[in-house]
Amino acid sequence: MEDCIFCKIAKGEIPCHKIYEDQKVLAFADINPIAEGHTLVIPKRHAADLWEIREDDLTAIHMASRKIALAMKKALAPLGVACLQLNGKGANQVVLHYHLHLIPRVANTPELPMTSWELIPGNPEAIKKMVQKIRGAL
Amino acid sequence: MEDCIFCKIAKGEIPCHKIYEDQKVLAFADINPIAEGHTLVIPKRHAADLWEIREDDLTAIHMASRKIALAMKKALAPLGVACLQLNGKGANQVVLHYHLHLIPRVANTPELPMTSWELIPGNPEAIKKMVQKIRGAL
Repeated sequence: MEDCIFCKIAKGEIPCHKIYEDQKVLAFADINPIAEGHTLVIPKRHAADLWEIREDDLTAIHMASRKIALAMKKALAPLGVACLQLNGKGANQVVLHYHLHLIPRVANTPELPMTSWELIPGNPEAIKKMVQKIRGAL
Repeated sequence: MEDCIFCKIAKGEIPCHKIYEDQKVLAFADINPIAEGHTLVIPKRHAADLWEIREDDLTAIHMASRKIALAMKKALAPLGVACLQLNGKGANQVVLHYHLHLIPRVANTPELPMTSWELIPGNPEAIKKMVQKIRGAL
């Protein structure tokens, strides 16, 4: 879809810190991470949200998310992983291209808000390191 | 699994406010809702989390979640729906049987925490009404 930033990332027109890719799915580091290792999993084919996404793409997203969550567990040994997927602009879905957040949780870090947070760019070098760690465990 | 409350609900040994059921999946109202219409989608076969769940069950969960989210949209006209799935006791997964939260968001309600919230029992009559509304739109 024209003017969709995630479509541009999926097509390689905008660079990303890639973590995983298959025929239907791309996963990359969120450049405004709310936790170390914060990852987005998107379908390559545009769909705004859960209401619009095709069933085969939805299945592919969650098969990929499982692989990435397993890699996060191996690579980062987090307390856990929160999977969050927002639907609807009014519910603070910022980019209107379906995306699943995978958010590793570590000890002694503050609670996170479910639907709205400040977008603060992460340190690119720190993001790159996390991506290498997760990719290495895939 | 013995002593797993969600296994007991899946087997019908403990009652629930059922919203949806198929061969692999059961969806029911959270009795401690953090929003009106707060729904849990679980696999009938026990799996602790995303790391443990079988691929076919994971697919079934998300196919069901799509149907229920569509019904929520029709029945409740929310601003949106947040899908949240926590993995790991340390990340505040309370019941160690995989469950996906579907949380309708309405205007002028406070932000929700991502991983930990107080478990406050909802009004059973209000829950019953929400369940009927969502079921009616399935």
